[in-house]
Amino acid sequence: MPAFFPQDIIIKKRDGGALTRDEIEFFAKGVVNGAFADYQATALLMAVFWRGMTPQETAWLTDAMMRSGEVIDLRDLPGAKVDKHSTGGVGDKVSLILAPLAAACGLKVPMMSGRGLGHTGGTLDKLESIPGFKVQLSVPEFRAILQQVGTAMIGQTPQVVPADRKLYSLRDVTGTVECIPLICASIMSKKLAEGIDSLVLDVKFGQGAFMKKKADALTLARAMVETGRAAGKPVRALLTAMDQPLGRAAGHTTEVIESIECLKGRGPADLMEVTLALTGHMLILGGAAKDMADAQAKMQAAIASGAALQKFREMCTAQGGDARVVDDYAILPTAKKQIALTAPAGTRGFVSAVDALKCGHAIMALGGGRAAVTDKIDHAVGLADLIKIGEPVAPGTRLCTLHVNDDAKAVRAETLIREAIEFSSSTPTREPLIQDLIS
Amino acid sequence: MPAFFPQDIIIKKRDGGALTRDEIEFFAKGVVNGAFADYQATALLMAVFWRGMTPQETAWLTDAMMRSGEVIDLRDLPGAKVDKHSTGGVGDKVSLILAPLAAACGLKVPMMSGRGLGHTGGTLDKLESIPGFKVQLSVPEFRAILQQVGTAMIGQTPQVVPADRKLYSLRDVTGTVECIPLICASIMSKKLAEGIDSLVLDVKFGQGAFMKKKADALTLARAMVETGRAAGKPVRALLTAMDQPLGRAAGHTTEVIESIECLKGRGPADLMEVTLALTGHMLILGGAAKDMADAQAKMQAAIASGAALQKFREMCTAQGGDARVVDDYAILPTAKKQIALTAPAGTRGFVSAVDALKCGHAIMALGGGRAAVTDKIDHAVGLADLIKIGEPVAPGTRLCTLHVNDDAKAVRAETLIREAIEFSSSTPTREPLIQDLIS
Repeated sequence: MPAFFPQDIIIKKRDGGALTRDEIEFFAKGVVNGAFADYQATALLMAVFWRGMTPQETAWLTDAMMRSGEVIDLRDLPGAKVDKHSTGGVGDKVSLILAPLAAACGLKVPMMSGRGLGHTGGTLDKLESIPGFKVQLSVPEFRAILQQVGTAMIGQTPQVVPADRKLYSLRDVTGTVECIPLICASIMSKKLAEGIDSLVLDVKFGQGAFMKKKADALTLARAMVETGRAAGKPVRALLTAMDQPLGRAAGHTTEVIESIECLKGRGPADLMEVTLALTGHMLILGGAAKDMADAQAKMQAAIASGAALQKFREMCTAQGGDARVVDDYAILPTAKKQIALTAPAGTRGFVSAVDALKCGHAIMALGGGRAAVTDKIDHAVGLADLIKIGEPVAPGTRLCTLHVNDDAKAVRAETLIREAIEFSSSTPTREPLIQDLIS
Repeated sequence: MPAFFPQDIIIKKRDGGALTRDEIEFFAKGVVNGAFADYQATALLMAVFWRGMTPQETAWLTDAMMRSGEVIDLRDLPGAKVDKHSTGGVGDKVSLILAPLAAACGLKVPMMSGRGLGHTGGTLDKLESIPGFKVQLSVPEFRAILQQVGTAMIGQTPQVVPADRKLYSLRDVTGTVECIPLICASIMSKKLAEGIDSLVLDVKFGQGAFMKKKADALTLARAMVETGRAAGKPVRALLTAMDQPLGRAAGHTTEVIESIECLKGRGPADLMEVTLALTGHMLILGGAAKDMADAQAKMQAAIASGAALQKFREMCTAQGGDARVVDDYAILPTAKKQIALTAPAGTRGFVSAVDALKCGHAIMALGGGRAAVTDKIDHAVGLADLIKIGEPVAPGTRLCTLHVNDDAKAVRAETLIREAIEFSSSTPTREPLIQDLIS
């Protein structure tokens, strides 16, 4: 006689009940060991989509999913272990800048990231533009680099949170992806399994983000902060706008170059604003800065001194990558052709929109994205020199440079970019980039 | 590129949309051929449980499920093909009386039935009490007996409505059983696949029925009548009370004996009332009677003349059963012991309740029911001589006879029967047995 019948748990949630910790644990373990069949798991997922979960249920689910596999224990490593997670967007290369910067300021940043899917890019894919860079490391290798360099950026190991891999693959094909408690448990279980002490979240909303509406992003941010608190880990979340791409580059090679430029002190304003805010909160949470002014001073110093760039070099080398990339961008995969798109005759005024979703689709059109997880991507293609909302335009003003390996694909990408960029005669009113802090 | 992605269909229903005929057909075929994975089917089933289905969607689902396998074509058989289906109860042996009676009145009754599960009995199990009686016949055998005798009572062949078998097995373990459109499509797809011209339904409600509430039974009855209409088949449904067992016998051997007694004109009033009402509507639908008075006259004549009993004999013989059972009940499996339960000292007044659910549980306690579909059942055990609501009682009045093969089991059954039967000092007010006709 098993402790639970899956159907009893399904019926309880179907009828709007709150599940107990034991029931949730049976589910999270059961999807991995088979006690909860796939066809029972998806019925429960749909019932959760319908009925929701209380904050307590969400915290229990997160904990049970985390403990479905290996939980990395970094307690013996000196220093505060702080990570950042973004819900994803277009041109979001913050991790590549933030991890070495935070490490240069004294934190340990144990970062497990994902790959891009659809119009959003993935940190692992970007890192793999760097010749030799290995993202599939074992936990002992991860730990060793973390100790030596202060940050390591890898893909999830198969031993970590197997329940999430299973559940995500089921949610993806059963219409149960867009569900706050499930999204929260998926993200938080993976982050908590890294062995972190605290966490900063970048919850994006807008056209180019997973959450289109600010209200949904706020709900998710609150759920994740609350789940972190239940696990005894301080979490802060920033709500940031993803209406236009972050920075001026999107793709893989182009984003790596822009990230290195940021570490050299030459980054675009919007990208630096988000990066410094997120890193600043990490430094405060990790005790490496006493407040945001202190954090800003330390981060500026780490960039000005070259310490942050040096951490990037060290991480590259430690993970098998060619660190000369920092001084020679030609080492990166380079597209055959660069096509400058300029504003047409008659254009006067200002840029009023740069639709991030369309820019993401343009990268996919160039071959730089994935429609399915098994798709190969072209690291060389992408966008650079992208104009930003509010900037003045006249005929011939450069709107963007397409990095292209295939002329036919370039035609489709150009159409999308021209659709993405809109103009107005007066300066457009702009919403702030960082709109809220949840803690 | 497939015509549909299952997840798109799931998301449409999840968001409250109505599915198209093509989408429903893709689902019903897909669960059989694998294009719709089990874990996708159950997510859709839960979404249907949540969002419901329109009458049009239900009719399309019924049709698509029916066409997932072999649809029996009886058009070349002379006479009207009319069947009856009951949603099930305790002591419901109506089919065993109705099928030969309707055949004796000139109808063809092509009846595919199910087995008992839980507290409700199944027609196939009851028939198998008769030595030699075969219920697993091929479609050609079914058709031949139907032509020769006028009725055949068999189990579903594997070729008929495979989508229902698959979906039912999934619903059973995913909390998606109690859903009107799914119940409707399950019942109606199987009945329409029999090749019938019209159908009578006995939709039961109350303690001993699948539907506890009359309102739910009414909703289901209306859905099935409407689905029949959409398929061009006239359907009438009676709503009948299942608070106490139907008749005075429940089990297998005991019910076969009571059925034969009915065909001999010696049946209990409540059982005959339901049987004659259902059979009467069949005769009217099949054109064998012009109205209910005409039908009653014909049925009474078929019983009085022995024609109905003769049809029962012929069906027994045609299906391999020992027809001598009609005249010698000792041929049936007989329990070792018969225990008379009588009213205790101090009892005065009338029977106010005979809880059908507890009676069903008493039969299971005796070994005459199934908790799981794979359980074996004991055909010999059961209840007979059961007292009815409204009958007077005094100390020593017989309440019931237990047919028992195991003393320990008898103790548990007696407890349940004594709990089931309640008394009152005055005559209890009784609801009518047949409460509504939907057509």
